[in-house]
Amino acid sequence: MKYIFLIGLLLITYGAAGASIIDGEDGYRLWLKYDPINDDDLRATYAKQVSSFYLSGDSDTMKVIGEELAFALNGMLSQAKQVNASQAGLIVAAGDKANALAARHKLDLKAAGDEGYLVYQVQHGNAEKVMVLANTEVGALYGTYRLLRQLQTRQPLADMAIVSQPDIQLRVLNHWDNLDRHVERGYAGESIWDWHKLPDYRYQRYVDYARANASIGINGTVLNNVNADPLILTDHYLEKVKALADMFRPYGIKVYLSVKFSSPQLVGGLDTSDPLDEDVQQWWQAKVDDIYEHIPDFGGFLVKANSEGQPGPGDFGRTHAEGANMLASALAPHGGTVMWRAFVYANEKNEERSKQAYSEFKPLDGKFDDNVLVQVKNGPIDFQPREPFSPLFGATPETPLMMEFQITMEYLGFSTHFVYLGPMYEEVLSADTYARGEGSTVAKVIDGSLFDNNTSGMAGVANIGTDRNWTGHIILQSNWYVFGRMAWNPQISAEQVADEWVRMTLSNDNEVVATVTEMMMKSHEITVNTMTPLGLHHIMGAGHHYGPAPWVDSLGRADWNSVYYHRADDEGIGFDRSPSGVNAVEQYFSPLKEQLADPATTPEKYLLWFHHLPWDYQIKSSGRTLWDELVHRYYKGANDVKALEQQWDSLKGEIDPLQFHQVQMAMDIHVKEALWWRNACVLYFQQFSDMPIPDGLPKPEKSLKQYQKMSFPHAPGQG
Amino acid sequence: MKYIFLIGLLLITYGAAGASIIDGEDGYRLWLKYDPINDDDLRATYAKQVSSFYLSGDSDTMKVIGEELAFALNGMLSQAKQVNASQAGLIVAAGDKANALAARHKLDLKAAGDEGYLVYQVQHGNAEKVMVLANTEVGALYGTYRLLRQLQTRQPLADMAIVSQPDIQLRVLNHWDNLDRHVERGYAGESIWDWHKLPDYRYQRYVDYARANASIGINGTVLNNVNADPLILTDHYLEKVKALADMFRPYGIKVYLSVKFSSPQLVGGLDTSDPLDEDVQQWWQAKVDDIYEHIPDFGGFLVKANSEGQPGPGDFGRTHAEGANMLASALAPHGGTVMWRAFVYANEKNEERSKQAYSEFKPLDGKFDDNVLVQVKNGPIDFQPREPFSPLFGATPETPLMMEFQITMEYLGFSTHFVYLGPMYEEVLSADTYARGEGSTVAKVIDGSLFDNNTSGMAGVANIGTDRNWTGHIILQSNWYVFGRMAWNPQISAEQVADEWVRMTLSNDNEVVATVTEMMMKSHEITVNTMTPLGLHHIMGAGHHYGPAPWVDSLGRADWNSVYYHRADDEGIGFDRSPSGVNAVEQYFSPLKEQLADPATTPEKYLLWFHHLPWDYQIKSSGRTLWDELVHRYYKGANDVKALEQQWDSLKGEIDPLQFHQVQMAMDIHVKEALWWRNACVLYFQQFSDMPIPDGLPKPEKSLKQYQKMSFPHAPGQG
Repeated sequence: MKYIFLIGLLLITYGAAGASIIDGEDGYRLWLKYDPINDDDLRATYAKQVSSFYLSGDSDTMKVIGEELAFALNGMLSQAKQVNASQAGLIVAAGDKANALAARHKLDLKAAGDEGYLVYQVQHGNAEKVMVLANTEVGALYGTYRLLRQLQTRQPLADMAIVSQPDIQLRVLNHWDNLDRHVERGYAGESIWDWHKLPDYRYQRYVDYARANASIGINGTVLNNVNADPLILTDHYLEKVKALADMFRPYGIKVYLSVKFSSPQLVGGLDTSDPLDEDVQQWWQAKVDDIYEHIPDFGGFLVKANSEGQPGPGDFGRTHAEGANMLASALAPHGGTVMWRAFVYANEKNEERSKQAYSEFKPLDGKFDDNVLVQVKNGPIDFQPREPFSPLFGATPETPLMMEFQITMEYLGFSTHFVYLGPMYEEVLSADTYARGEGSTVAKVIDGSLFDNNTSGMAGVANIGTDRNWTGHIILQSNWYVFGRMAWNPQISAEQVADEWVRMTLSNDNEVVATVTEMMMKSHEITVNTMTPLGLHHIMGAGHHYGPAPWVDSLGRADWNSVYYHRADDEGIGFDRSPSGVNAVEQYFSPLKEQLADPATTPEKYLLWFHHLPWDYQIKSSGRTLWDELVHRYYKGANDVKALEQQWDSLKGEIDPLQFHQVQMAMDIHVKEALWWRNACVLYFQQFSDMPIPDGLPKPEKSLKQYQKMSFPHAPGQG
Repeated sequence: MKYIFLIGLLLITYGAAGASIIDGEDGYRLWLKYDPINDDDLRATYAKQVSSFYLSGDSDTMKVIGEELAFALNGMLSQAKQVNASQAGLIVAAGDKANALAARHKLDLKAAGDEGYLVYQVQHGNAEKVMVLANTEVGALYGTYRLLRQLQTRQPLADMAIVSQPDIQLRVLNHWDNLDRHVERGYAGESIWDWHKLPDYRYQRYVDYARANASIGINGTVLNNVNADPLILTDHYLEKVKALADMFRPYGIKVYLSVKFSSPQLVGGLDTSDPLDEDVQQWWQAKVDDIYEHIPDFGGFLVKANSEGQPGPGDFGRTHAEGANMLASALAPHGGTVMWRAFVYANEKNEERSKQAYSEFKPLDGKFDDNVLVQVKNGPIDFQPREPFSPLFGATPETPLMMEFQITMEYLGFSTHFVYLGPMYEEVLSADTYARGEGSTVAKVIDGSLFDNNTSGMAGVANIGTDRNWTGHIILQSNWYVFGRMAWNPQISAEQVADEWVRMTLSNDNEVVATVTEMMMKSHEITVNTMTPLGLHHIMGAGHHYGPAPWVDSLGRADWNSVYYHRADDEGIGFDRSPSGVNAVEQYFSPLKEQLADPATTPEKYLLWFHHLPWDYQIKSSGRTLWDELVHRYYKGANDVKALEQQWDSLKGEIDPLQFHQVQMAMDIHVKEALWWRNACVLYFQQFSDMPIPDGLPKPEKSLKQYQKMSFPHAPGQG
């Protein structure tokens, strides 16, 4: 191994022209920046402890560990050296070697499991050494990133005694990326997969993508859109998939594919895709065998079936279980998994949309093969800014459920708002389903502990694109980060994750960290208020979901229209999902179902999700009427975004100027759009309430008609 | 002005995993790299001469000059300082100040014209000073880049005495970029214009785009596709256009827009777009006035009318001149220009496609307003790998013609081949039209000198996208570069431009420069042989134009099919455009028309463009039969690409490893695809010739059927 050091001289100029910043931190490096540690004492201490390191092997993964250590330690400490074990301050070991070291130091390596690690400082002979020990080499890679984080966040290495293994087995990004590089619901450029140039042309970005994921424990990636193109299963594309799988393998990342259920007909030349048809079964088996011949660690399939026009087993009179199991039995001999989405709702069904996934899948509990996970969106509708958790969580003891979170900002301002999703994920994961009494949190459902499932998973719909900073602006990188961290440990606090992310990405200055962390922690609540306060939902622009459009009432399906969801009328507003209405609350366990059945005991954040209430209904927390509270929330949301921007402005000079500028431009847009939401929604709902905007609040500049006339045919991300 | 220096420590590791290059020169900096000059003596000499500089003003353009000088000189010399005139080694001056200095040193500043410059070393008092003098500030900017190039290519500053002004007035990039960021015929990612986030979110890339263009003298950019979306003329988008124009203004770059001729109907609410209708005229006038109110230096409109389904004046029974003049009179009061494309061909016309533009526009000569340029593609068909020049050049003494070159690689391997377009541009520009006797080159037509036109222009269809390296791989940056240099000076040699580009982009080592320049200079000829030797044309895949498909015969229009163009049959191959055929040669001047009428005097490179010849026709240069020569060229092309790759491989270690690797990956694809072209075309044409592949040549691995079955529904860039 050979190292070359290049000194790059970067210059930043500030002039009056505005156009004058020539270089700076553009965000490409994500949270793996490894900039020099300026504190001489600390740097010297770290250097003494870990700048000389030993690796227990030379597999591809160990090589990757060595390269990352060399890169990171040279960056932070200006020194790094791979040496033999006796000279090393840092020992990274896996397998037998790790076992021997663990035994010698009386450490319990079993506690690291298959993918976890121990990071300990130990007295080794007459020297103190830092040890990263794991049963597997990928465990050692994760442990290495854990150790590096300690340096990145300026924590001491002395007395480290960390034992960690993931609570969730499949920690997977879902890319809704089409083969033409359009990303459905993508707001950060186009797909990073350049299918046309693969397999020969391999971007450095592919490697850096793998590094970033491995650093937060993500171990799988579904490369293509759930609205799948059947061509992905042709040799032409599988050759390209293999190229990516080969690049990701050393980083412990398995490749999965979304498949179209009718592939046997579309690319296989069969005249049916009936899962009980033998030719169909054989076609899939042969296809799967072929994939594994080229990609021995292939992960498996993600399937969106009988949903929003996608084909599925229902087209042949079969159940979701029959469809999923057919694929599962083709994958089983190779150790592959089927991730079968529960996001289904059908026009033909005479049932309210939020109830359909439960109705469809609850009866199938116990009917799925062992290597099937049913993948459920966090809420019962569709990634709204805020939803109650889906009642499916807890309802299927025999069927492991995989959480599907959205990381990309389809409903939360695309990529120009300042929103940290940690608190939203935490709210969902910590919610109590009461499935086995109090404490039966969603986290315990999906990590498999509540029902002792033998498999578990969490998926995140990626916010990654070809934008130089990957995610649209730098703050949104934290959502990729927190997804990975919570998939590893669904109990971790969003605030802790924000703190470490800020330290690695923006600054280790404690005041800056405190300010940005506080901004991040409140940003989701603020943004919910700007769009859909009090449990409102799905009132965005039709199709692209950009901007406010509570007036949408003419789409092909009733449950695609805004008016279906807010149900504003002269009497009041909100969707009566209580027993007096569509009774969606019955799908929850007691005592939650009783609590949600009554507006008085329903949390205010879900009020209009579950109840249609009169405009003069009195809001408990404030004493305001519902109308006044609604207006108040919209105004407060817009004001809070402005205040958020001012908080960011206060950091000028404390943060790299390009990073600072990037977020500032996004926040300008966030402020503008919060006002737009406020004005459009208040004017629209006022038609029904016939009540005034409370005194003292500024009136909207435009008329409702003007807001309604705005159109955005080229808004990004449309499906 | 304040400068901050950041020391960036970049590390490159080479490991066995292939995935191991962590950082390096990714190509984003283009030819403006300004890396440190290692030769101590030379660096010291330069530093003494120009590291302290004086600027004659503080306009936005002067600020830009100061920033570029500071950035470049700090980069190359590690020192740069803006000082007062008496202390400065380098003086950059424009306007009165420049005039005074020129007078003092007896320099003829008039020779610099409106956009040009003088760069002189002079004895000033008792010191030698380098002076960049210009009548305008943008001239001073161009002169500054000229001076910096001297340092970048390690040439002496002593005795510099450079006078330069552009021969062509409008030097313009055409972006075929849609408002949804898809780039028609784009192979380097998506559009760099993020319309959704504009005007508030302004990428650093916008500035660097302007810097790159200014450095090679490009002074205009058409932001959107000639297949224009009428929404570009709505307030919503004009606000975004203004943001870009504001950023580009200090760099001397004007913004132009492609407009849809039926905009009055599509976004104006009128019921006609007839150019002679008063309401239509008023609508355009009001629209233009509004644009200039916000963008006072707006450039004007580019129009594709009555071509490939686009609306135009013909829809209302009007001529191209009537359509163009209507727009021209709206723009004239503001100094704006209409660029009206001559790329028209109609199914209804009973005339061969290559002849139609001439037939349509020649009779209109003299009928266009003064601020109209007719924009003509270099060849009579459509940007083929090689075409004879369009017979329109020279045919319209009263009408200035704007050259339209393609920089993007629609027909030359997308962005994965190694092709330098300099020799192709040079071939076209130096071709003799004989319009006013010998020496009436195309260059003299388009620079306006042949017919003493008062305006002139050259357009290049950009190859720019969001790829980090802008153009797909680094070598293709040279095509953007050479376009700009030849638009400034259409007489410059492609080889000189290649030499300077290599020095600025890859290496100043003379051997490396010689090798790469030689590779570049032969690359176009080689690639033509791999695809369309001997004057063949338009036999690429249907629609996307990817890969060989001489068999295409079923598209909606006869002249969209490959078989229309190659006309292979049992008798022979080629398109008889001589007097015995469609007589396209009659559109050229004598003696060219007579020369092209006879296969014996037609240059071999155009042989099958103008003649249908028997398979056993004897090729003069080689003595081979036509069949053998055709096969020979395809095999030679593929072999030459392989040899080109080996030449590149020989540079390993001499070029930055990331740059080296990037081109190597592209060349792997070039080699593969040259073989694909060879095999598919030889097998296909063999059906007609019924003659064997000459002995000693390896036979194609696949059958013709297999090549014909290949399909690429997601090939990039489709319109």
